Amino acid sequence: MGQGFANGVGMAVAERFLRAHFGPEAIDHHVFVICGDGDLMEGVSHEAASLAGHLGLGRLVCVFDDNHITIDGPTDLACSDDVVKRFESYGWHVERLGEVANDLDALEAGLRRGIAEADRPSLLVLRSHIGWPSPHRTDTKEAHGDLLGAEEIRVTKALLGLPVDQDFYVPDEVPAFYAERARRGRAAREAWEERQPAAVGDRDRFEACLGGRGLDGWADSLPSFEAGTKLATRKAINKCLTATSAQIPGLLAGAGDLTGNTGVDLGAGAEVQSHAHPGGRQLHFGIREHAMAAAMNGMALHGGVLPVGGTFFVFSDYARAAVRLAALSQAHVVYFFTHDSVGLGEDGPTHQPIEQLASLRAMPGLRVIRPADANETAAAWRIAVDSDGPTALILSRQDLPVLAETSVLAAEGVGRGAYVLLSGRDASAPPDIVLIGTGSEVQLCLGAARLLEPEGIVARVVSFPSWDLFAAEQTGYRDDVLPPGILRLAVEAAASFGWERYADATVTIDRFGASAPGSVNMEKFGFTADHVAQKARELLGTRARQLGES
Amino acid sequence: MGQGFANGVGMAVAERFLRAHFGPEAIDHHVFVICGDGDLMEGVSHEAASLAGHLGLGRLVCVFDDNHITIDGPTDLACSDDVVKRFESYGWHVERLGEVANDLDALEAGLRRGIAEADRPSLLVLRSHIGWPSPHRTDTKEAHGDLLGAEEIRVTKALLGLPVDQDFYVPDEVPAFYAERARRGRAAREAWEERQPAAVGDRDRFEACLGGRGLDGWADSLPSFEAGTKLATRKAINKCLTATSAQIPGLLAGAGDLTGNTGVDLGAGAEVQSHAHPGGRQLHFGIREHAMAAAMNGMALHGGVLPVGGTFFVFSDYARAAVRLAALSQAHVVYFFTHDSVGLGEDGPTHQPIEQLASLRAMPGLRVIRPADANETAAAWRIAVDSDGPTALILSRQDLPVLAETSVLAAEGVGRGAYVLLSGRDASAPPDIVLIGTGSEVQLCLGAARLLEPEGIVARVVSFPSWDLFAAEQTGYRDDVLPPGILRLAVEAAASFGWERYADATVTIDRFGASAPGSVNMEKFGFTADHVAQKARELLGTRARQLGES
Repeated sequence: MGQGFANGVGMAVAERFLRAHFGPEAIDHHVFVICGDGDLMEGVSHEAASLAGHLGLGRLVCVFDDNHITIDGPTDLACSDDVVKRFESYGWHVERLGEVANDLDALEAGLRRGIAEADRPSLLVLRSHIGWPSPHRTDTKEAHGDLLGAEEIRVTKALLGLPVDQDFYVPDEVPAFYAERARRGRAAREAWEERQPAAVGDRDRFEACLGGRGLDGWADSLPSFEAGTKLATRKAINKCLTATSAQIPGLLAGAGDLTGNTGVDLGAGAEVQSHAHPGGRQLHFGIREHAMAAAMNGMALHGGVLPVGGTFFVFSDYARAAVRLAALSQAHVVYFFTHDSVGLGEDGPTHQPIEQLASLRAMPGLRVIRPADANETAAAWRIAVDSDGPTALILSRQDLPVLAETSVLAAEGVGRGAYVLLSGRDASAPPDIVLIGTGSEVQLCLGAARLLEPEGIVARVVSFPSWDLFAAEQTGYRDDVLPPGILRLAVEAAASFGWERYADATVTIDRFGASAPGSVNMEKFGFTADHVAQKARELLGTRARQLGES
Repeated sequence: MGQGFANGVGMAVAERFLRAHFGPEAIDHHVFVICGDGDLMEGVSHEAASLAGHLGLGRLVCVFDDNHITIDGPTDLACSDDVVKRFESYGWHVERLGEVANDLDALEAGLRRGIAEADRPSLLVLRSHIGWPSPHRTDTKEAHGDLLGAEEIRVTKALLGLPVDQDFYVPDEVPAFYAERARRGRAAREAWEERQPAAVGDRDRFEACLGGRGLDGWADSLPSFEAGTKLATRKAINKCLTATSAQIPGLLAGAGDLTGNTGVDLGAGAEVQSHAHPGGRQLHFGIREHAMAAAMNGMALHGGVLPVGGTFFVFSDYARAAVRLAALSQAHVVYFFTHDSVGLGEDGPTHQPIEQLASLRAMPGLRVIRPADANETAAAWRIAVDSDGPTALILSRQDLPVLAETSVLAAEGVGRGAYVLLSGRDASAPPDIVLIGTGSEVQLCLGAARLLEPEGIVARVVSFPSWDLFAAEQTGYRDDVLPPGILRLAVEAAASFGWERYADATVTIDRFGASAPGSVNMEKFGFTADHVAQKARELLGTRARQLGES
């Protein structure tokens, strides 16, 4: 439902990007999309088509299978769009091909006109008849959703001059035709492979592009961060991105009109992706989160581009259908989801994520990482680039202290999903309580541990940036980090939903937020070291009473 | 970001609907929307504008504040749309008003032309200048996101002829002007209240409409279902809907091109909402889930309509941003989210919800109900109509047996979120294990309990249709249903995420689904009574060993 159309837009960006960097001898092809009414009714088609028109993606050729039928019946039950005018408004080349769905010459001529249009994407409107030539199902909604049935298949086969008594019938000329096409394809592939090494120039860059990887040793360029300084993780990710972008040749970064805000800004020297600058690595996706995520899938699945897309975390909801397909198809993409809690401040509940962390953690196949500080952010960026599949980095708007503990431990610890940041006074003795924090709340757990220490309460602090990575660890490691039988308190400025998996109690937020300065919100909603320490004392008191009673 | 624009479309539907049913003496107004670049770049604006054009919503007048600036900078960084042509393609009346943002007469004349257009929605494109007349911020992105600052405020006030030394300054004529307007408004309101009783005719119907309620005793029309028959809950909800629709005068139902599939079909006699049939209660939203949910919010917040919208559960992802705003604003809307698990069959992983239940349960303010059979469906429909705020009904594609137990217990039980369907052999003795099921998996728990009984294992079966409603119950009730210390096994064809809150173990599915007949999927993924019983035996065995060891 619109996803493939928007994937095509991303694929056309990837083709143009690679052609610009490695030349047409190495990369030179078109992207063809066949889409239907449902695709074009969906909002993502507007976002993607508008973006494609703006970018002047001349290699994109779309055929609209305009059959006038959807599941409910005729399309005019719900839609009166003038599709030609609509796509012209986006700057596309649009043609009505007419009723030529079974006229191969006319179809080919139309496609060739689309191919010839170098500066604009093309939409070819093909009036077709669903179910044709079935006598009772042509132009009916039943042809969309139901099986034809044995009798209708029989009469339709007879109409087409096919043998009616064979379930599977292939005329002799068909395998011969495809064998010839396969030979042509193989020859073209071999010719491409032969000229490619000379054509692409720097082979390492080309291979890194195709693999969506960094050059060997790319991560050596990662910056280090000084403990005690303060930096929002959205700013830290930007430092990581700009420091390593030259070492990740396929990197293409952009935001939904939040380039500076979400850390995807490649800097003043970066070319903006456009018809004039097809090699540009900075892409302005516009206020189109859904198309951004869907086009990123297309770039990643095309290959040759490692797409990075940024928006406010709450607006990941707009892109969710495409994020799910990234997870399902294991597209190698990276999201910078920033402004990750009520700590963002005055924009209020419409902009403050609450349930988004739980809802993304519940999605199979998506790696979600919420780093505690700049050091964990650098480790998370390394994982996102080096791993397969999609990664969502959940980043703070507000400044966070760079922790002394993470400078040593984060590089390995983030990769394991959770790790001990502070053992307590004595590493060999079990702690009284484990304080689990993620993202901006890890510092609160460290602060609470320091408050509890003079009272003789030994609190372990565990930084827990990624549930997915932790779940992939062995039981032995998980028990080392979270010793069975020891009380656990999780602290996260998000919904409590799901935390029972790892914690006995939480300091979380199970309501929509409020409009106030970020620091006021955090305090009022209980995200302070004092409140975490107090909650820990209460839990230990309850546990002690329970033990006394039993 | 597009939500208000789509809300406006829903409000215009609500106004027209009420005017058709109660006459222009009772209801007669226009809906005005002011929207910006971000609204119109968002995909939901395409869906909503296309729908509004198709419906011919003449009372909708939108002003596009075309200031050419977004957060990143000039709009032409990301967008080259011809907005006039685009909206004309949707069948709108479109005018470029030009640079008249500060010319009240020209503005009013434009608005009056929009008002005069009775058959089509109107878009008035107003070229404005953000930050005007600030000397350093006019036409800059800084005027969007940053504070002007004291000095710039001072010079701008001076330019406008305002006193520069007063933080709050109101010229005398302003309160006088608004007091006069308030008098006019009060008089109009009083005149309306006076003529309204005669105008509306049936006062009960009018009040029920405005309240989004059923007429007194509406639920007496609910059908009953015979135990032992089989019925998909999506079919059961359709029977509930059609049986009660005459008693819920504000009801307006539609789907995203899945009218028959999702149970929102009001039947052959129902008029389809259109320009020609403005009182029609069946609305074809088209393949536009996001606009559907956002327009439903507009209808509910306008008042006078109880909107019901249907789509496949997996496509709730497309509508998620609007569902969240329903929860945040407590809009009284009802979603029929059908085809609720891998049990839907061959359409495969793209159509099979896995994480959607968890992700909606994590959302504050949204009531999520997954009924076990037709009886629970009827109870859920009653709750959805009689309660405030949004309700999502999660419904099966496949047939489910109507349970003898629910015919007695569901009416009260569903309202409490979870309830005991089968106590075990003796209600006074504690069970060995509690089997918790939701939706299509409740029957499996009952089947497993029957398998375990001859082995001397007493299994309680709890039907758990709604986490939200159960969480609102007192601890005493919750402990009655789920006795502390008794093993609990939850069975749900969805992600396990979150179930640790209520269960010690689960039969769930933490991967994407598969394309196969629904019954094959259910069996292969372990959703059978045999597997549930086996899992229960294992848990009891493990528990016994643990007790033996301690």
